[in-house]
Amino acid sequence: MSEPVFETIAIIGTGLIGASIARAARQYEAASAIRLFDADKTVLAKAGALGLGETAPDLARAAFSADCVFLCVPVGAMSALAADITPHMKPGAILTDVGSVKGEVVRAFETLQAPHIHPIPGHPIAGTEQSGPDAGFAQLFRGAWHILTPLPNPYEDYKEAQELLTDFWQALGARVSLMDAARHDRVLAITSHLPHLIAYNIVSTAYDMESIGEGEVVKYSAGGFRDFTRIAASDPVMWRDVFLSNKEAVLEVLGRFSEDLAALQRAIRWGDGDALMREFTRARGIRQMIIDAGLESDEVNFGRNTAQEDSE
Amino acid sequence: MSEPVFETIAIIGTGLIGASIARAARQYEAASAIRLFDADKTVLAKAGALGLGETAPDLARAAFSADCVFLCVPVGAMSALAADITPHMKPGAILTDVGSVKGEVVRAFETLQAPHIHPIPGHPIAGTEQSGPDAGFAQLFRGAWHILTPLPNPYEDYKEAQELLTDFWQALGARVSLMDAARHDRVLAITSHLPHLIAYNIVSTAYDMESIGEGEVVKYSAGGFRDFTRIAASDPVMWRDVFLSNKEAVLEVLGRFSEDLAALQRAIRWGDGDALMREFTRARGIRQMIIDAGLESDEVNFGRNTAQEDSE
Repeated sequence: MSEPVFETIAIIGTGLIGASIARAARQYEAASAIRLFDADKTVLAKAGALGLGETAPDLARAAFSADCVFLCVPVGAMSALAADITPHMKPGAILTDVGSVKGEVVRAFETLQAPHIHPIPGHPIAGTEQSGPDAGFAQLFRGAWHILTPLPNPYEDYKEAQELLTDFWQALGARVSLMDAARHDRVLAITSHLPHLIAYNIVSTAYDMESIGEGEVVKYSAGGFRDFTRIAASDPVMWRDVFLSNKEAVLEVLGRFSEDLAALQRAIRWGDGDALMREFTRARGIRQMIIDAGLESDEVNFGRNTAQEDSE
Repeated sequence: MSEPVFETIAIIGTGLIGASIARAARQYEAASAIRLFDADKTVLAKAGALGLGETAPDLARAAFSADCVFLCVPVGAMSALAADITPHMKPGAILTDVGSVKGEVVRAFETLQAPHIHPIPGHPIAGTEQSGPDAGFAQLFRGAWHILTPLPNPYEDYKEAQELLTDFWQALGARVSLMDAARHDRVLAITSHLPHLIAYNIVSTAYDMESIGEGEVVKYSAGGFRDFTRIAASDPVMWRDVFLSNKEAVLEVLGRFSEDLAALQRAIRWGDGDALMREFTRARGIRQMIIDAGLESDEVNFGRNTAQEDSE
């Protein structure tokens, strides 16, 4: 085993992602010491009880002597938190985050009055439908992409810090890519933000069908609906912040989605089977591409039938 | 082991569902003999080569002496097929189907000039994203609901036929429920048809983002998008027929979906975080209800991380 990438890391926000970083850093020996802080004392106590690291009583003591500080809070809380913690960070330390929207974080990091540290925004394309410290697990980032959106910075030591942070995520099993923050926000709007909005929305629509009971929706959910409920079970605060802070890109893809849906609606109304076939046929290929890229299991039905067989 | 429910069954259409019925009927000893027919000779030959049953050269020889005939073809082909096969069926035999829309099938079955048989429409709420005879497997129906939408029929022997068909599906591991065809089509419009339409549509929208490459959509699909690609990989012909033959119910739920989505869109545009929170929060509960009903695995991320760990 090689040396840990960092001597001490501080994780601020011990939900699913923070807890997973803590577990992974320990399991893959990417950091020697792990300090934890969470504004919610109950959550922090739970994280401590789970043995995720050493809990700190405040931000100052969490950040003190840490080589890298991970901000793992909803995007809406990022800017104030970054301003609060940087005065306590040691010179040359790295400040990073895991927010799902990067434009706003880049703007917040750029305006920090903290020339002594290296702010490097980041976003792991990983997660589950669960939340909280006990939802975290060490394997979450294995095989997943981690996007860094570095600030424009000509200094050599910033580049070195970026390399260290890359090493850390690679130690956790992630694949690291670099992106411009604006492009990140446009790409993720279609691959992540829109899917979540659609999933939340279809669950709402189903709830509000006054002629169909919740029981029937549940009972016949295997027809396709259940696939949507996984991401619709994601943390509401996190997702509220995503939509509020990536407004332009989300509204843009949402406009396109609605336009395309209106075209399908029209094809159904006028019985245009050829138009439906055209759209449905081209959708088949993309799943295989995702499987081939190692980003999806090739088990049918998400392996549900296998799980079922095993339990019999 | 009890006696097989049927001596001989005929399966017309040997795709995913037909092939799964064949495999399940054999594995759970629900039928002694299985006859197969498919209008596509290549598909039929494949089904025969897979050992799914005895292939028949035409509909007449498939139906001859069969106690129950299963029509496993897209809904659009159902009506003509039913009219073609019933003259060859023996007196007292059952005609059933697995179509995803029941109103149209009920109308077709009601107008059959075949008083010597028992037509009982049905729909298994089971399937995978794959198609064709080699996609079939015996466990597909285990734990799944199977809906029967019987014709109004006062005769005692029709009720007996209905009980036999119920026994058959239960032997395959399914839970059988009875429903009015119109209600079936309304309920499935929200639990199955709308989710498929939305999934097809979001894949189309992603393809057409001229500023974002297919490669990037694939690369960052773990952000949520990949969940939608499973059902968007379903058989296009089957789904074209579903939307054309359940037009009214689909347009109704689609109208509600678009209305709800417009409200979310407005909340995003005006920065109404409270409205977003309200919608997102109530969506969490339904997944747990589906898991509690035994209709979904409780593994996070559809068990993807487990699969990944296993393969390492």
